Amino acid sequence: MLHYRSSGKSNDQENRARMLISCPDRPGIVASVSRFLAEHGANIVHSDQYTLSPKGGMFFIRIEFDLEHMEERLVWLERDFEPVAKQFEMDWRIHLASKRKRLAIFVSKEDHCLVELLWQWRAGDLDADIVMVISNHPDMKTFVESFGIPYHHIPVTADSKSEAEARQIELIEEAGVDTIVLARYMQIVSPTFVQRYPNRIINIHHSFLPAFVGGNPYRQAHERGVKLIGATAHYVTEELDAGPIIEQDVERVSHRDSVDNLKRIGRNIERVVLARAVSWHIEDRILVYDNKTVVFN
Amino acid sequence: MLHYRSSGKSNDQENRARMLISCPDRPGIVASVSRFLAEHGANIVHSDQYTLSPKGGMFFIRIEFDLEHMEERLVWLERDFEPVAKQFEMDWRIHLASKRKRLAIFVSKEDHCLVELLWQWRAGDLDADIVMVISNHPDMKTFVESFGIPYHHIPVTADSKSEAEARQIELIEEAGVDTIVLARYMQIVSPTFVQRYPNRIINIHHSFLPAFVGGNPYRQAHERGVKLIGATAHYVTEELDAGPIIEQDVERVSHRDSVDNLKRIGRNIERVVLARAVSWHIEDRILVYDNKTVVFN
Amino acid sequence: MLHYRSSGKSNDQENRARMLISCPDRPGIVASVSRFLAEHGANIVHSDQYTLSPKGGMFFIRIEFDLEHMEERLVWLERDFEPVAKQFEMDWRIHLASKRKRLAIFVSKEDHCLVELLWQWRAGDLDADIVMVISNHPDMKTFVESFGIPYHHIPVTADSKSEAEARQIELIEEAGVDTIVLARYMQIVSPTFVQRYPNRIINIHHSFLPAFVGGNPYRQAHERGVKLIGATAHYVTEELDAGPIIEQDVERVSHRDSVDNLKRIGRNIERVVLARAVSWHIEDRILVYDNKTVVFN
Amino acid sequence: MLHYRSSGKSNDQENRARMLISCPDRPGIVASVSRFLAEHGANIVHSDQYTLSPKGGMFFIRIEFDLEHMEERLVWLERDFEPVAKQFEMDWRIHLASKRKRLAIFVSKEDHCLVELLWQWRAGDLDADIVMVISNHPDMKTFVESFGIPYHHIPVTADSKSEAEARQIELIEEAGVDTIVLARYMQIVSPTFVQRYPNRIINIHHSFLPAFVGGNPYRQAHERGVKLIGATAHYVTEELDAGPIIEQDVERVSHRDSVDNLKRIGRNIERVVLARAVSWHIEDRILVYDNKTVVFN
Repeated sequence: MLHYRSSGKSNDQENRARMLISCPDRPGIVASVSRFLAEHGANIVHSDQYTLSPKGGMFFIRIEFDLEHMEERLVWLERDFEPVAKQFEMDWRIHLASKRKRLAIFVSKEDHCLVELLWQWRAGDLDADIVMVISNHPDMKTFVESFGIPYHHIPVTADSKSEAEARQIELIEEAGVDTIVLARYMQIVSPTFVQRYPNRIINIHHSFLPAFVGGNPYRQAHERGVKLIGATAHYVTEELDAGPIIEQDVERVSHRDSVDNLKRIGRNIERVVLARAVSWHIEDRILVYDNKTVVFN
Repeated sequence: MLHYRSSGKSNDQENRARMLISCPDRPGIVASVSRFLAEHGANIVHSDQYTLSPKGGMFFIRIEFDLEHMEERLVWLERDFEPVAKQFEMDWRIHLASKRKRLAIFVSKEDHCLVELLWQWRAGDLDADIVMVISNHPDMKTFVESFGIPYHHIPVTADSKSEAEARQIELIEEAGVDTIVLARYMQIVSPTFVQRYPNRIINIHHSFLPAFVGGNPYRQAHERGVKLIGATAHYVTEELDAGPIIEQDVERVSHRDSVDNLKRIGRNIERVVLARAVSWHIEDRILVYDNKTVVFN
Repeated sequence: MLHYRSSGKSNDQENRARMLISCPDRPGIVASVSRFLAEHGANIVHSDQYTLSPKGGMFFIRIEFDLEHMEERLVWLERDFEPVAKQFEMDWRIHLASKRKRLAIFVSKEDHCLVELLWQWRAGDLDADIVMVISNHPDMKTFVESFGIPYHHIPVTADSKSEAEARQIELIEEAGVDTIVLARYMQIVSPTFVQRYPNRIINIHHSFLPAFVGGNPYRQAHERGVKLIGATAHYVTEELDAGPIIEQDVERVSHRDSVDNLKRIGRNIERVVLARAVSWHIEDRILVYDNKTVVFN
Repeated sequence: MLHYRSSGKSNDQENRARMLISCPDRPGIVASVSRFLAEHGANIVHSDQYTLSPKGGMFFIRIEFDLEHMEERLVWLERDFEPVAKQFEMDWRIHLASKRKRLAIFVSKEDHCLVELLWQWRAGDLDADIVMVISNHPDMKTFVESFGIPYHHIPVTADSKSEAEARQIELIEEAGVDTIVLARYMQIVSPTFVQRYPNRIINIHHSFLPAFVGGNPYRQAHERGVKLIGATAHYVTEELDAGPIIEQDVERVSHRDSVDNLKRIGRNIERVVLARAVSWHIEDRILVYDNKTVVFN
């Protein structure tokens, strides 16, 4: 009963940017930032703000604004903002809406999450470029290539793991990928890989975390006799299934459902939850703090 | 928060049948039917029953049972059951689980419902044969044919409407289609067509019926300012959007959602609701009575 | 799958205010308002903003801010804000969080919505003063009075209707009531009454509007054979069940559910939906525009 | 999006019974049981059946049936059924619908679950007798007694624990209690106590089990940053929070929700989930097998 909401596909996109700020809470932040934007001729289209515990806490804001000739003026805007950022000890960034995120999707044999992302992308609902699909299996090559997307089959064995990752990183770097989506990629990625892309690797885990960490969560769920099953999209960190949760959802099940039924029902949850998480990420709606996410949606 | 549940894909399918009965309620129905089945060597695997108002009401039952050599023995079983059926004035039928329903999918330009059905079919989750896709537009020909499914482009204009329907019926009859799915087919089918396939045409209407009957339901929903939008799968009857409802679901929306957003959110509800309804239909889980459905799931 | 969120019960309440603004969209609104607040020493704790169609549209904002000695300084703040408001043609108001809304609850015989509001109020979850309960029946007098709340039994007949309303208005005015909650009050209030309290009368309708307007919605729902039933909280306008929708929710039902079951299931939806709507209203989270609500939550 | 469904309050109740059977699966069970009932003049009003894995598995059935002069004839019915039960190695029982379950509710300081049960009971939605409330605190004495229900304040300290339990058991036995509801009773009951009432103690745990077992689950949920919180009703077994799950539900939360907000939101889930579980239990809809529940609803 929730959905991702996209910022739309209007022509304004080329003059639109999204600003994300985290900093210690203090009076005057909104006033300073909005005055800065007004003085630079920008028009705030949407802003959403969150303060973590009123006093001595943290302040988070996401601002969407329009500015004529945004692309050329971005560098000046960023330079001019430096003093404001310094004054409030801000962690900040500005993203151009016109600069679409570049995605690499990792997949193994289960294809439902991949298919969903491709379908949403083709329907124009996923405002990003899917620049490659990487898999440890060759199965979906033809299907993926029919969308005009390069497919890299990189087998992974216990022995070839680090070699495979080196190849993956090479491809990712060459193509300027900025977001990696593990769309039911059944391999554990190494700490080195994870550290290279902090808060930029999104995984879908097929359980309602923190219940059923690790392998075979649907079997675990069946054995425990739960009445709802779920899926969790999260940023990948070094600890397995313990990264910041972006989105979760559940579906009702009953004693009648076999493990196979749970898997089938689960597929629908997984694809929807992952697609929402990816959508929020590519629209710069997510800030990470204290191993949790602030999602502005 | 609900799902369709399939009866599984076990090897038992070839010896399994589903019996559906409606009749006036009276003592002894379950006893008679189950004794009949036991005496014929059948084993009841699942049964679900419903009585509409205890006294002077209606009785509905769905029984799944296994029987060795089911296919050859079906005719005898049906012949032997006649006296029982007569005694209780039953409206009844027996379906072999091994005899998959034959589906024709009608579609216009919006492809999400079609894609969902094809995807579930390819994944083995839709236990039916999709024997053709009929469209008043040529757009999806290549895509559909890549699944090995014939695609018939039959344009429909005000003038050609009855001619087009004649052609559709011809194709349907030739191919032995038993279920027609209107997967966002944006043409109103004629009373003649509807009467030919009672309780065999499933439509997806993109609103929570009976709210927003007719055209542009998302625009209507936006104008009314509702906080949830929905979709409804129903059997088609002569009165527009007034047939027996099979399934409905909703998603939360807010003042922030434009009509385009509602459409995008709605697409996900529509495909899921339609797929559930089709799944229940092909597993013989639905009985129609008094313009309503009894769904055994 | 949604909840009301209260602004908490911290000690800060006495220095907190909520500002609500609607005006034609134009560059610089956020900057002007936030500069104004900063210059007056206020600290923005939370702000939420919404623009209806980027160009030539409407701008809505809700700002929670803290200011030392808020109560005494409010008049100056309001006076000083006038020029800003004028410049942007704002429709605006500032509410002190410490000034709790004063509620009158109207009820007939069904008590579940009243009980819910009383229970939440006693638990400290409803940050308002319930100053009276008015009923056309005497049934709940003892119960209500056990909470220390005055109960006024004002019978309503076809003949006494206008007289009864006059008495209601008298009580409301005397007690300084600012919000009227129709908690399953089974009388239609007159246009005169409605006009007197625009966007201040909240009604709970026991259907998913606009489906099943008018009387006996659960019976109507049963006859149509819907698979979900719902409830809708809305501001009362002169047209029956057509006012701005604040909140809606649904529950799944099936062919098994009698009209009585729908009523029982519905009771739970009604009380939850109404309590959410009241909660949002008393926290000044709702703006009305074009017969719809903008709900900042 | 689910609800408990009661079997209604018709006059038929006095002649209605519910039969629950578990046994190894074998052909002919339904036939034998339904023939038995037909031969004894009983009319099956509702039956629901479930087979765990088709071959060599378990068979479960719940049958509601009407029989004239049920109360007097029950002993004969039970005696006559013995041979059938023996033949199929059945674990079985027959409950008279007219013989309402006798409940003891245990509570500590949080009253929302208790209030919900009392409210449903007073509204006639909980078809049982609440024969006592036991608490380790005196707080709710007046409130509970206003419903005409005895309130026993039995303080529990580390030292007095076994003494307190002895007193509880004494009260329970004297009053012929058959079901114990731990409605946020914040004491761990002893193995001795648990063994005495197998599948007759229902607890509400304020998390989505198996996530957040043990103390302070809302704090744990907040620390993990989950996007949904839940509650679980289960039968109590010796292992903490590990008994057969009866019902679960969740609500959406966000980064904005403090631990206190989670508690407030959670209260609504807890009361609804517990009330559903109790309702199913008192209508004899639950069978326990392999530390899981089969819920016929």
